[in-house]
Amino acid sequence: MLILGLDPSLSCTGWGVIRSEGVRISHVANGHIQTDAKAPLAERLLHLLDAVDAVIGQFAPDRAAVEEIFVNKNPQSTLKLAQARGAVLAACGRAALPVTEHAARSVKKAVVGTGAAEKAQVQAMLRVLLPGARVEGPDAADALAVAIADAHLAGRI
Amino acid sequence: MLILGLDPSLSCTGWGVIRSEGVRISHVANGHIQTDAKAPLAERLLHLLDAVDAVIGQFAPDRAAVEEIFVNKNPQSTLKLAQARGAVLAACGRAALPVTEHAARSVKKAVVGTGAAEKAQVQAMLRVLLPGARVEGPDAADALAVAIADAHLAGRI
Repeated sequence: MLILGLDPSLSCTGWGVIRSEGVRISHVANGHIQTDAKAPLAERLLHLLDAVDAVIGQFAPDRAAVEEIFVNKNPQSTLKLAQARGAVLAACGRAALPVTEHAARSVKKAVVGTGAAEKAQVQAMLRVLLPGARVEGPDAADALAVAIADAHLAGRI
Repeated sequence: MLILGLDPSLSCTGWGVIRSEGVRISHVANGHIQTDAKAPLAERLLHLLDAVDAVIGQFAPDRAAVEEIFVNKNPQSTLKLAQARGAVLAACGRAALPVTEHAARSVKKAVVGTGAAEKAQVQAMLRVLLPGARVEGPDAADALAVAIADAHLAGRI
């Protein structure tokens, strides 16, 4: 079972693929997709869509996982994030991937053991849970975390 | 010059194509794209993307126009709308269509003459501005209105 974790954002969408076998998980790949802040919105959204399409094409995951979103203190950021998420999820739809949404607290709890964990704790646990994985920055780390949480919450680890 | 107006929404995205020639505009086509509320989010977003792709393929517009969004009183509705908008704009990106965003007030002002116009006034003006057009419901009407506003605001009518 290959799980694709996604951390959508308009400027930089993180992705991470893990393998979940019985009670074990292992790292497959991770990365991030950056878009040109000077490019038109439609072009940036298309770039995210195409790049996620390519990741799915390369690794052929069985399912995808993404954090739930909510309207936070910065409405403009939320609107950008949600539009990026729309393009990224459309790519999952294209591949007919089942997508599960997890609350941010559930992801932290699954990875670190507490829903109030800091980002640094999540990243430290990634090094323990996925030894040897070279993680391409904080967005890829968040994407791997949601993939791990998905495996955990589905009772697979 | 063919202008594609879009009124994105997860449940029902309206679209409308008008022709803008010198100081004249005329109706070309309009419609709406409904998604199955029971289908997974990723599938609904893909359906919007593919259907907008098909409209663009059929009419080959030169440019697209869409209303600006903001976070309104219902954050959950806003998040759905923004994700739908992300998928719809990615389709515009695919066709390399320039997309212009217009404030809702500007659209009403361009079509009716006042930014505080009611929906019914906008729809009545559509019947005047695009005589003979058979408008497929309120979402298609909103899409035609933003296309007309785009022609107007670009100084083409």
